[in-house]
Amino acid sequence: MESAPAIQRLLDELERMPGVGPKSAQRIAYWLLNADRETAMRLADAIIEVKDTVHFCSRCFNYAEGDTCEICASKSRDERTLCVVSEPRDISAIERTSAYRGLYHVLGGALSPMEGIGPDDLKITELMARLATEDIAEVVLATNPNVEGETTATYLARIIKPLGIQVSRLASGLPVGGDLEFADEVTLGRAIEARRTL
Amino acid sequence: MESAPAIQRLLDELERMPGVGPKSAQRIAYWLLNADRETAMRLADAIIEVKDTVHFCSRCFNYAEGDTCEICASKSRDERTLCVVSEPRDISAIERTSAYRGLYHVLGGALSPMEGIGPDDLKITELMARLATEDIAEVVLATNPNVEGETTATYLARIIKPLGIQVSRLASGLPVGGDLEFADEVTLGRAIEARRTL
Repeated sequence: MESAPAIQRLLDELERMPGVGPKSAQRIAYWLLNADRETAMRLADAIIEVKDTVHFCSRCFNYAEGDTCEICASKSRDERTLCVVSEPRDISAIERTSAYRGLYHVLGGALSPMEGIGPDDLKITELMARLATEDIAEVVLATNPNVEGETTATYLARIIKPLGIQVSRLASGLPVGGDLEFADEVTLGRAIEARRTL
Repeated sequence: MESAPAIQRLLDELERMPGVGPKSAQRIAYWLLNADRETAMRLADAIIEVKDTVHFCSRCFNYAEGDTCEICASKSRDERTLCVVSEPRDISAIERTSAYRGLYHVLGGALSPMEGIGPDDLKITELMARLATEDIAEVVLATNPNVEGETTATYLARIIKPLGIQVSRLASGLPVGGDLEFADEVTLGRAIEARRTL
């Protein structure tokens, strides 16, 4: 295919984005070519701005523009509950539920002996420092419900419980709106074990 | 959801892109936040560069970086065949087939009385000027096989044929690899009408 080098470069860069294949990249490239200059510049500027201004919150390691993130800076959060997550994107997912009003702590990953990620590679020292200085009553372990996430949760529970702080874990079970027949056996097994009395 | 204003702005801009919904925008935004600065800058630069350097080919109205596009500038194309398309992206689609080696002419749309797009809104005067000055033996009408595209093709055939130039239209029929039972009745009807003797 013969296209202008600048278009080809744009296609190459667009294809690096997650979930964007050659077809989507082409669709986006032609949309950009068709768009007015201002729209395209706003997108380019937003990309540059986010790299220039966003860094990690000094307290919880969420993405932040100032020294602390919007959640740590908020006055309306429950400062006695701390939710531990692997990545900043997990905070977005939990915030969307509106079911949690406490603070967060981002580990920056999960324990994985396979990939050589140990406790020193995560913000665990920083978490323990927060538990020592802040008045936290409950830690909610919201790492992913997979092998690495469960390993991380088990490890953290073991070192946090001796501090006399309540430790909880997100419930496992059937996804709401899902079909029982399509649930995998591990999930269904967990749902049976954790059945609620009505 | 409380996220840094710069991230929110990036999400808003990403969601403008075709085929990118809130979930994909968030996935791309977090990928950009995680990516090294250089990767993000390359994407932003590619967007700026394409708006700065790409304009329309003075001959065929394809996207071009120089005065003429890569296809018009090429010495290896059949200069006696001209394929008329609605948009530059249609050229990419045809080029990918490797089934066509002639030149192109981009109309910049299709006739649509409903949307008030008439012959003067398309590059038809420019097409007729090319047919008068270039040595074209055949015009392939490759507008889309929909109402606007067919209207445009019929209109062009009527004004080009009197010049003694051969006019052809892309074949309609069943998509290769498709299932007969899933073909819509119009397509199947066309395929029957245009059946080939074996």
